[in-house]
Amino acid sequence: MTYQIYFEPVGRRWLGTDDKVSLLEATRQAGVGIASLCGGYGTCGSCKVQILDGQVSPLTEAEEEQLTPTMLADGYRLACQVYPRGNIKVGIPLESLTANQRIQVEGQEVRIPIEPVVKHYHIQLSPPTLDDIRSDVTRVLDYLTERCGLDNLSIDLEVLRHLPGQLRELNWEAALGLREKEIVSLQSNGQARLGLAIDLGTTKIAGYLVDLETGQTLAAAGIMNPQVSYGEDVIARIAYATRGSKEATTLSQLVVTSINELARELCAQSSHAADEIAEVVIVGNTAMHHLFLVLPVRQLGTAPYVPAISNSLDAKARELGLDFAHGCYVHFLPNIAGFVGGDHVAMLLATDIYEADGTVIGIDIGTNTEISLGSRGQLMTCSTASGPAFEGAHIKDGMRATDGAIERVRIVNSQVQYQTINNAAPNGLCGSGILDAVAQLVRSGIIGKKKTRESHPRVRYAKHGCEFVLVNAEESGSGREITITRHDIGEIQLAKGAIRTGINILLGEAGFTASDLNKVIIAGAFGTYLDVTSAITIGMFPQLPLERFSQVGNAAGMGAKLALVSKEQRARAEEIARHAQYIELAAKPHFADEFTRAMLL
Amino acid sequence: MTYQIYFEPVGRRWLGTDDKVSLLEATRQAGVGIASLCGGYGTCGSCKVQILDGQVSPLTEAEEEQLTPTMLADGYRLACQVYPRGNIKVGIPLESLTANQRIQVEGQEVRIPIEPVVKHYHIQLSPPTLDDIRSDVTRVLDYLTERCGLDNLSIDLEVLRHLPGQLRELNWEAALGLREKEIVSLQSNGQARLGLAIDLGTTKIAGYLVDLETGQTLAAAGIMNPQVSYGEDVIARIAYATRGSKEATTLSQLVVTSINELARELCAQSSHAADEIAEVVIVGNTAMHHLFLVLPVRQLGTAPYVPAISNSLDAKARELGLDFAHGCYVHFLPNIAGFVGGDHVAMLLATDIYEADGTVIGIDIGTNTEISLGSRGQLMTCSTASGPAFEGAHIKDGMRATDGAIERVRIVNSQVQYQTINNAAPNGLCGSGILDAVAQLVRSGIIGKKKTRESHPRVRYAKHGCEFVLVNAEESGSGREITITRHDIGEIQLAKGAIRTGINILLGEAGFTASDLNKVIIAGAFGTYLDVTSAITIGMFPQLPLERFSQVGNAAGMGAKLALVSKEQRARAEEIARHAQYIELAAKPHFADEFTRAMLL
Repeated sequence: MTYQIYFEPVGRRWLGTDDKVSLLEATRQAGVGIASLCGGYGTCGSCKVQILDGQVSPLTEAEEEQLTPTMLADGYRLACQVYPRGNIKVGIPLESLTANQRIQVEGQEVRIPIEPVVKHYHIQLSPPTLDDIRSDVTRVLDYLTERCGLDNLSIDLEVLRHLPGQLRELNWEAALGLREKEIVSLQSNGQARLGLAIDLGTTKIAGYLVDLETGQTLAAAGIMNPQVSYGEDVIARIAYATRGSKEATTLSQLVVTSINELARELCAQSSHAADEIAEVVIVGNTAMHHLFLVLPVRQLGTAPYVPAISNSLDAKARELGLDFAHGCYVHFLPNIAGFVGGDHVAMLLATDIYEADGTVIGIDIGTNTEISLGSRGQLMTCSTASGPAFEGAHIKDGMRATDGAIERVRIVNSQVQYQTINNAAPNGLCGSGILDAVAQLVRSGIIGKKKTRESHPRVRYAKHGCEFVLVNAEESGSGREITITRHDIGEIQLAKGAIRTGINILLGEAGFTASDLNKVIIAGAFGTYLDVTSAITIGMFPQLPLERFSQVGNAAGMGAKLALVSKEQRARAEEIARHAQYIELAAKPHFADEFTRAMLL
Repeated sequence: MTYQIYFEPVGRRWLGTDDKVSLLEATRQAGVGIASLCGGYGTCGSCKVQILDGQVSPLTEAEEEQLTPTMLADGYRLACQVYPRGNIKVGIPLESLTANQRIQVEGQEVRIPIEPVVKHYHIQLSPPTLDDIRSDVTRVLDYLTERCGLDNLSIDLEVLRHLPGQLRELNWEAALGLREKEIVSLQSNGQARLGLAIDLGTTKIAGYLVDLETGQTLAAAGIMNPQVSYGEDVIARIAYATRGSKEATTLSQLVVTSINELARELCAQSSHAADEIAEVVIVGNTAMHHLFLVLPVRQLGTAPYVPAISNSLDAKARELGLDFAHGCYVHFLPNIAGFVGGDHVAMLLATDIYEADGTVIGIDIGTNTEISLGSRGQLMTCSTASGPAFEGAHIKDGMRATDGAIERVRIVNSQVQYQTINNAAPNGLCGSGILDAVAQLVRSGIIGKKKTRESHPRVRYAKHGCEFVLVNAEESGSGREITITRHDIGEIQLAKGAIRTGINILLGEAGFTASDLNKVIIAGAFGTYLDVTSAITIGMFPQLPLERFSQVGNAAGMGAKLALVSKEQRARAEEIARHAQYIELAAKPHFADEFTRAMLL
């Protein structure tokens, strides 16, 4: 038997001949990394996939135990338990993918009507003669008026500086990029018409190279934000930038250089050149936005935390030091408040919370977590200081989500099952691993309201207090044990407490309780790969049926792409920012009570 | 008797007590320099003035001889023949003023309805509180919407970068400069709202500092164009810029630096600061325009001499290296053709030739002379290569119009009467002096169609041929004789021939003859101070009654000021450039014939 497996949304195909090969094994052979904690025994539930089409082997008992009836009804299965019976199409939920697959998914196609703010026009001109001495620009504009009905156009100065040479080189045939009424690029007719969407995060910068005419993502990549060396969080960077204009310029230039490099890399991947990029959209939190634009941040770092600007903004790329098409603009989505920036607006744009049916909450988890509640045209937003614990910081064996980071944990009696990124030897825990670990400790009763089970063989007293040994020294990549300490658990309590407080206060302000929520959308790198069950277990999220949760990947990046290829979406972003009602949590009298309660495990 | 003399348009007052003081002497004591060739004997006619009001001594015979009946009827007198009989008001025609008075006059008030493209608004905001966390920009925009009904505004990035600091420093009260929908400046409410008009000439740069709210000229000054050291004419500079981008940038930067310095000087003169300048208008010929903007000029220097752009253009001052208000724009008036630039459009704007009653010709004399003919809504324009002879170049004893330059000449039998700039010892001849000298040689029959009067005591044969001794070695400032050579006369023939050819061909194209002209407007430094009778004598201008000629000073600078303080005038400039029909002289079959004829003396 020969059969084909098509994996969505990664878009990979795999041909099989052996009906003894499980779907899990097939994903591995196809190079589609999915999680598998228990090693294929159907006991961890981490390899769940959705069978979208085709025949497969029947349900096993293990699956009936691990999956909810709703999931089963929706075609969810555990990849380790499934054997194809012919051609099948398999959907892989984001949370089942391992870290090295993520970027690929984050570059998903945009599926909206394409109407970019920069449109391209093909021109073919007659050259000047003694009888036709019109200037080069007049020649171009006359053509656009006669052939395309366009008038009152202007031309970018830098495009103008190159236009006479380029027109003659290209033998008077070219493609022009028009942004509203301004000519922002001139290129040969054969070149691509590209846009770049950037999600400028505090820790990571994600870039998407997009075909402006089809909306297709041609390449996607993520790099570290080099400002990290000047402070892990925005407060440290604000403090640095406030020292003087040299320091502020340094922070901005670091990001400018990185975005230039990222763009060149994305272009190289897809055989393009950076000067084919005619429009850029950047989304980021308010501090990243201000630091990048070299706007003053002193007033952003002290109460009442007022941004210099919350409106959207267009700036010439070259004036920012970005090296794209001569007249290229960068569009920055609007900010909502000092701690709710354009990245959250982009997330709201991509997830449609503003115009959703029912009551929906959207959560963007980071050092600072932004939460919005949408219900019947009402939109409330808050920001909560969840800290860097879920990025692995302030955790004894915490680390970023790179090779060797434990991303999934399961405690079965005295055994610990775990999965590392790229299956490398474990070096520490990334956010989703820490979350799992704490949830498993709660679930197995090792910590929690009950008295600590000091009798567990992996619990011990070290010099800094009580800790749980997750990985022995022999197994670990570094040769050192990997443990979870009491202090680590405290950090996670602070983090999850902050998030839950935000959710609860927003619900209260809008007059709802958690059970009124029709949907909980979780965005961002950590939010997408966390285990929702674990998050519920530790009380970070309210107890709701699993199917009401939706993990959507880099929704901020997706929103940036939407704003890149659609004027309408850009206008919607304005509307979202204008209508969002910002709730200052700390100003609520019951904030301290809520927070104390939300911190409990 | 005590009386007051008021001099127009220089705006100076002088109090006299002695009725034996001639008006000429009074101008000298008042520091108003006017020409006087014959030394006050009423024989040269160069000190003519217009008595606008008040009683003076009766007409003398000398005046009846020197002035036409029309002029006498209009109140024209010779200053050396007039004695005040009480308070009088005296108008001094531009052509009677000596060089050191010129700049002052060129800075005359603009008298049109003021409607600048940048308008200023006073704002007074409430500071942010925990209950009002609007961003700084939102706070500003909300104010402008509520108080001034303005919406959909944007803000310049550089203004934005300074806004948070400035608002707090100014205690939330400030004045904003709005250019259409963009905030381009923020300053304290007490600062001035200034504009800068620049006439960027090949040889000279003239600057006018203007109050944008009243239209008043606060200061005016002229400096040399430093590009002169890279070539006296545009062709040499085009050749230099075409060598490479470094060379092109050098030429531009020289002018940028000069304009920055000129602006600082003008501001210092009027106790202002350059950052109070919120809008700039620059006019120049097409080559100066392109070189300043670092546009390619290769195609401008070779047939068919096509500009990169002829439309008007707005560029951020800071992007050009100009240092004014943070968001200040520079507006460049449109060009008509490769050799008819925005300075000529500005001249047409200031002189109203386009909408004039009757048939009017406007002439802007320079190395390149632009001529326009307006008649009943029709506008024809040409450009003619008149060369630098009238700037003193290529003339044996030629010099620029500075101290010691002979600016007026009269030959009376074997005597030469002359006037130098600032009455310094003569060093050479500037344009108007050369023109006068040649005209006087023609008039006295020393050269011309008649056989050269070799018998004249001042005519002699030097090693380079026949020459006329204008100033003896003893009298001259340099200790060397000042002479007019045959070659000099040839240069003047070429120059005046080129100008006359342009006039004749334009007249022919429009179906007119010279006698149809109702008015001949002569603009520019040389054009204003030349003696019209001399120009008619050598055939540079057609033989028409003197009152049909009008010498208007720096009309290009005046046009730049109009475009600076009035949106309507800016729109009119567009219309003028669009409607002007460019006539390529060299393409006319009868060009060579016309030119040969026009060269004759």
